Amino acid sequence: MSSAVIDVVGIGNAIVDVIAHADERFLAAEGLALGAMTLIDAERAESLYRKMGPATESSGGSAGNTMAGIASLGGTGGYIGKVRDDLLGEVFRHDITAIGVRFETPAATSGPGTARCLVMVTPDGQRTMGTYLGACVDLSPGDLDAALIGAAQVTYLEGYLFDPPKAQVAFRTAAAIAHRAGHRVALSLSDPFCVGRHRAAFRELVAGEVDILFANEAEICSLYETDDFEQAAAAVKGHVAVAALTRSAHGSVILADGAAHDIAAVPVARVVDTTGAGDLYAAGFLYGLTRGLALPICGAVGSLCAAEIISHVGARPEGTLSGLVKAAGLL
Amino acid sequence: MSSAVIDVVGIGNAIVDVIAHADERFLAAEGLALGAMTLIDAERAESLYRKMGPATESSGGSAGNTMAGIASLGGTGGYIGKVRDDLLGEVFRHDITAIGVRFETPAATSGPGTARCLVMVTPDGQRTMGTYLGACVDLSPGDLDAALIGAAQVTYLEGYLFDPPKAQVAFRTAAAIAHRAGHRVALSLSDPFCVGRHRAAFRELVAGEVDILFANEAEICSLYETDDFEQAAAAVKGHVAVAALTRSAHGSVILADGAAHDIAAVPVARVVDTTGAGDLYAAGFLYGLTRGLALPICGAVGSLCAAEIISHVGARPEGTLSGLVKAAGLL
Repeated sequence: MSSAVIDVVGIGNAIVDVIAHADERFLAAEGLALGAMTLIDAERAESLYRKMGPATESSGGSAGNTMAGIASLGGTGGYIGKVRDDLLGEVFRHDITAIGVRFETPAATSGPGTARCLVMVTPDGQRTMGTYLGACVDLSPGDLDAALIGAAQVTYLEGYLFDPPKAQVAFRTAAAIAHRAGHRVALSLSDPFCVGRHRAAFRELVAGEVDILFANEAEICSLYETDDFEQAAAAVKGHVAVAALTRSAHGSVILADGAAHDIAAVPVARVVDTTGAGDLYAAGFLYGLTRGLALPICGAVGSLCAAEIISHVGARPEGTLSGLVKAAGLL
Repeated sequence: MSSAVIDVVGIGNAIVDVIAHADERFLAAEGLALGAMTLIDAERAESLYRKMGPATESSGGSAGNTMAGIASLGGTGGYIGKVRDDLLGEVFRHDITAIGVRFETPAATSGPGTARCLVMVTPDGQRTMGTYLGACVDLSPGDLDAALIGAAQVTYLEGYLFDPPKAQVAFRTAAAIAHRAGHRVALSLSDPFCVGRHRAAFRELVAGEVDILFANEAEICSLYETDDFEQAAAAVKGHVAVAALTRSAHGSVILADGAAHDIAAVPVARVVDTTGAGDLYAAGFLYGLTRGLALPICGAVGSLCAAEIISHVGARPEGTLSGLVKAAGLL
């Protein structure tokens, strides 16, 4: 049974990004790990925001960014995640539906406000994040739209969703629905510290439920508790059908069917803000995969999408990615 | 008495921008005049937002952008404008104070929410705006901080402020305070349709109270009801000590002391979004003026700041303008 009518459904933390420039001294003074995501509570979010420079607000969330990328490429998709019925929740819903992604998870009508991620971009373009999960903690298996998941070629799970307590159960439930429908399950490891917080659960999920794994060097090394990328890559091989391992400026490696494909990064004039680089790589990759393209082409589309996103502030595409991909001759 | 301790105080509509890409067909269907600002009510703002593409939110407001520019250049400043005590109001306050601008106007605790401007950027980089004035309509003479205005070398008035009913009175009061302190009054005409709505009041203000006038071609032509820029320029000459007339890619003309200085525009690789171009020109110009620079240099600093703002999405500087100006050898 493989009656997929949409390309990808993403499940993740529904977050609005608050993006500002900052220097490394500020991050050190605030005790934030450079380049990583730190979970913060409402009070800390408020105090950190007070100290941050002028900011812009835009919809984010790792899987949300990926779905926006897939829609911008011309793919079809849905999104499942929890906002509150407040202004930021409206902003999130507007932005993801405006680009054509189905998003019908009901907003929470009580409890904490819509999640926000304080993104601090250092002069090298790297982003460091403090996330207040807010309404995301309310996502539960009851929020899953089984028909939507069953209709998607790929169900894409954001690793960050292991942090809100009830979401892990939703995760496994979604994977089971996808597999019952004869479709594939993809997972992004999201962040090395997130992997560290939930290592056993991630390993179990990767080995048992994941068909396509996305991870960067730090994340895959964290999963297998090694400092050596080659070792980590060797370890993941037997566990998933496809592993796409991203290496920043060094491109990516795709491991599948015993083969390894090296994919070059697409150079950009200036790295402005790396927020969303991994999310958009996944968007390009999954878009290619759902079009039946060869894995090296999927990787090349991913690299191109990542290059677009790091050349401006913000984690959602500024132009239409389909045009870029066509111009590059990849479709 | 000329005991100025800050460079510029700006008075304007305190607005959060909601910026999206749109095509000209969409604007025509919505009945919005291309490149202009249309006032809309809360209901229309909601319906227009629903139809707009994915957006980013950032603090705006013409005079607010100018003050952010002056602070980014290393100048000192204050801002007077009305927000509501809501999330967008907090965002506006955060962003302008984070860059070092004094903003102490109390937020409204009842009435309409913080103003928002729906900015639609067409593929040519031009912006078309629909503004819901919200809490701005509550700005009244009682909100003026006389000590702040008295301490500023220049009091900068945003023409858009003629739209909310009580603000015109606040405008004249502020001008009187500035002149009593022996300081100068600057005015930006803001928008040709805004000029059309308040032509008589603007002419009276320009002739009676304004020392430094900023206008683009369409605005100065609207003020003097002519289609001919040269005619409009000739008309303004006798009325203000300094007129800085901007002409987009054709640079600007500064009229003062019977002389006319032609200032070149600073070329940019790609015009991404012209939102804030006039505001940032004014920032650079006033920064130069308060440093005692010659008028052609003031204009050149203005051109450089305008070039920075049109090379990215959003009306507030992304980097630090002082570095740009130093690198260009203008300081």
